[in-house]
Amino acid sequence: MRSDDDSLSQLFAALANPTRRAILERLAEGEATVNELAEPFDMSLPAISRHIRVLEETGLISQGQRAQYRPCTLDARPLREVAKWTEQYREIWEARFDRMDDYIRQLESKEKEHE
Amino acid sequence: MRSDDDSLSQLFAALANPTRRAILERLAEGEATVNELAEPFDMSLPAISRHIRVLEETGLISQGQRAQYRPCTLDARPLREVAKWTEQYREIWEARFDRMDDYIRQLESKEKEHE
Repeated sequence: MRSDDDSLSQLFAALANPTRRAILERLAEGEATVNELAEPFDMSLPAISRHIRVLEETGLISQGQRAQYRPCTLDARPLREVAKWTEQYREIWEARFDRMDDYIRQLESKEKEHE
Repeated sequence: MRSDDDSLSQLFAALANPTRRAILERLAEGEATVNELAEPFDMSLPAISRHIRVLEETGLISQGQRAQYRPCTLDARPLREVAKWTEQYREIWEARFDRMDDYIRQLESKEKEHE
């Protein structure tokens, strides 16, 4: 196992949770405090803080150091690795969707012949 | 939580493992039996079978039905959803990398002034 495998596994694991993805989506609009991030969720502050910590460990968010006001900020750069990994398969899935399209068109033209 | 959130979480969780990603990479080259997939890993057949089952549940691979020879086949189509989700953030991470480039260039030109 290479070390980049580890960080990719950690990233995918962090993204495998709808609350954590929603936190990233919120932060894409601008920085927010933990309280602000907790608002839309029916979840305790400690639970939200745990999600934030998981995201922090991947480098996807960072938290300010000012004592009273420590906003969270999105850093989407680690997602470039996710995109790179996924893109390797684009040709394969596009070919599969194209074959589906061809097959549907074949079925449609046969259907017309019967009419 | 919407149902598409669930399938995305399941996909990300399935990808959060280097062995499962290696299985997908192997299958991108062509179909393979469970024995063939197990070969490069120091892992028992039941352990490999469990990974295959996780990937099957996401729709990323399917297993043939012929009794003796049941090859696994890659179906990369679910990865389109992963790519779509990730692409929302491309502008954000590219802007961040651009700012890093600008900053490095600034530092370099300051460095030259000192020389």
